Amino acid sequence: MSDSSISDYIKSYAQRIEVELLSSLPGRWPVPDVLREAMAYSLMAGGKRIRPILVIAAAEACGGKLEAALPVACAVEMVHTYSLIHDDLPALDNDDYRRGRLTNHKVFGEAMAILAGDALLTHAFYAASGAALHGVPADTVLSIVRELAEYAGPRGMVGGQVADMQGEQGLTRLDELEYIHLHKTSDLIAFSLKAGGRIGGATEEQLEALETFGTNVGLAFQIQDDILDVVGDEGKLGKAVHSDEKQQKVTYPYFIGLDESRRQVAELTELGKEAIRRARLANPERLFELADYLVGRDH
Amino acid sequence: MSDSSISDYIKSYAQRIEVELLSSLPGRWPVPDVLREAMAYSLMAGGKRIRPILVIAAAEACGGKLEAALPVACAVEMVHTYSLIHDDLPALDNDDYRRGRLTNHKVFGEAMAILAGDALLTHAFYAASGAALHGVPADTVLSIVRELAEYAGPRGMVGGQVADMQGEQGLTRLDELEYIHLHKTSDLIAFSLKAGGRIGGATEEQLEALETFGTNVGLAFQIQDDILDVVGDEGKLGKAVHSDEKQQKVTYPYFIGLDESRRQVAELTELGKEAIRRARLANPERLFELADYLVGRDH
Repeated sequence: MSDSSISDYIKSYAQRIEVELLSSLPGRWPVPDVLREAMAYSLMAGGKRIRPILVIAAAEACGGKLEAALPVACAVEMVHTYSLIHDDLPALDNDDYRRGRLTNHKVFGEAMAILAGDALLTHAFYAASGAALHGVPADTVLSIVRELAEYAGPRGMVGGQVADMQGEQGLTRLDELEYIHLHKTSDLIAFSLKAGGRIGGATEEQLEALETFGTNVGLAFQIQDDILDVVGDEGKLGKAVHSDEKQQKVTYPYFIGLDESRRQVAELTELGKEAIRRARLANPERLFELADYLVGRDH
Repeated sequence: MSDSSISDYIKSYAQRIEVELLSSLPGRWPVPDVLREAMAYSLMAGGKRIRPILVIAAAEACGGKLEAALPVACAVEMVHTYSLIHDDLPALDNDDYRRGRLTNHKVFGEAMAILAGDALLTHAFYAASGAALHGVPADTVLSIVRELAEYAGPRGMVGGQVADMQGEQGLTRLDELEYIHLHKTSDLIAFSLKAGGRIGGATEEQLEALETFGTNVGLAFQIQDDILDVVGDEGKLGKAVHSDEKQQKVTYPYFIGLDESRRQVAELTELGKEAIRRARLANPERLFELADYLVGRDH
């Protein structure tokens, strides 16, 4: 794979992940059909599969194997998907479309969307625990499960979600927005990299570097999202541009302008890369390419 | 404790569990205050703490220690609490009161109730993983985490929840109602007993017996709930009697009458006890008493 372009790498791994996601969904009996359908509808709705690819890339960067990383890769995508389903609900963002398709509650109803999200979140821990069946030691898998709960839970992603919701009544300071981005987005990205590192047998120092990389690149990714929302092209993104502005949400460019936002994206990305450089991973190249891909995206 | 009555045993352990629950909630920073409050509001709302007590009782029945069982005891109560918060939402049962207090969404709003439920569910896996810090081997804790995800997830409690929701459009067969009771209620009770057994070092045969006990007593408990809903006294139960009937929900007595329902409660309880008798646990007495308490309750 190392000669292929990063977009081919992403495409190829995304395909592999989709095969795994489909087979990691719970079997038919005794799962009610409509629940399985509602889970699959959102889980198999496409997307770049960034988080699971980061799990795999970090594992491979540390000399680990793709197969060992797949259960946790699937788990993090289930957590990401549940958060989107609940985020889209009428009581939260009230979105009718995501990635050009009707949102879960528009197809299955609000009650089923809540339960499908609950089911995906719960099943993510089942999927993650499956890493032990692929040669990852039990104590390593347990550390990963514990961190998934931490980075996705009240101290992490859900905390960011709550702050985002409260922020809709009006943010007045950049550090409030940074808090939201760090927890709503960076935490799950940092988890993905650290978990991959654990699977690949990284040292404590390397795990810290992977976390620093994830936190910084995750924040850069989210600031870039803010920037694209101001300057982006509606067709490429598949959602309404200026949608944040319409909802009176404030963004990085709102606080510090476009140029300074762009400078911070570059600086955070470089900080992340520097941490990886110092950690001397076995094969770090794809991580650098992924960082550039994530923050350079116009898609 | 062995000389005390079962109701003293329950009261005393419930107090201990409440201390642990409070301290197992995530600390303040970086958790948004309102999220922590919403989680604590429902988690600390009283209740009999049946599931965590079953975790502890099963651990002790197998010769295990209270302290080792507490993290998983807290986890199962968090899962139970999240399920009540989501169940009460307007899109689901639309309940304004639970245990005589306003439901979570009536106090904190619908969006926060959804997120507080998500946070409790996620944090439950963090809490459960903490058993490894109390001397439970990592592979045992990992088995417990995996089973928590299984029994609480799409194959378990969420599956039962979905079936219950679909059933509101009219159940026509007893086996449909049995499916709902088994998954919505028994699964988490069976999990609690099996997890306690794992913590106490039970053999595979003993784990099976604990599961059989949990499944049967859990179903008996839920049939008893159906019976109480028909004949119970409003004051004792703290909720409107005949509420199921008002919502046109069908119950065990609806299908097979009160007498046959009562007979099945007795039979299922005896089946559960018989499994425990055959498994030769070190100290099974409290499990028998708990079974009688659960199905004999008028509270």
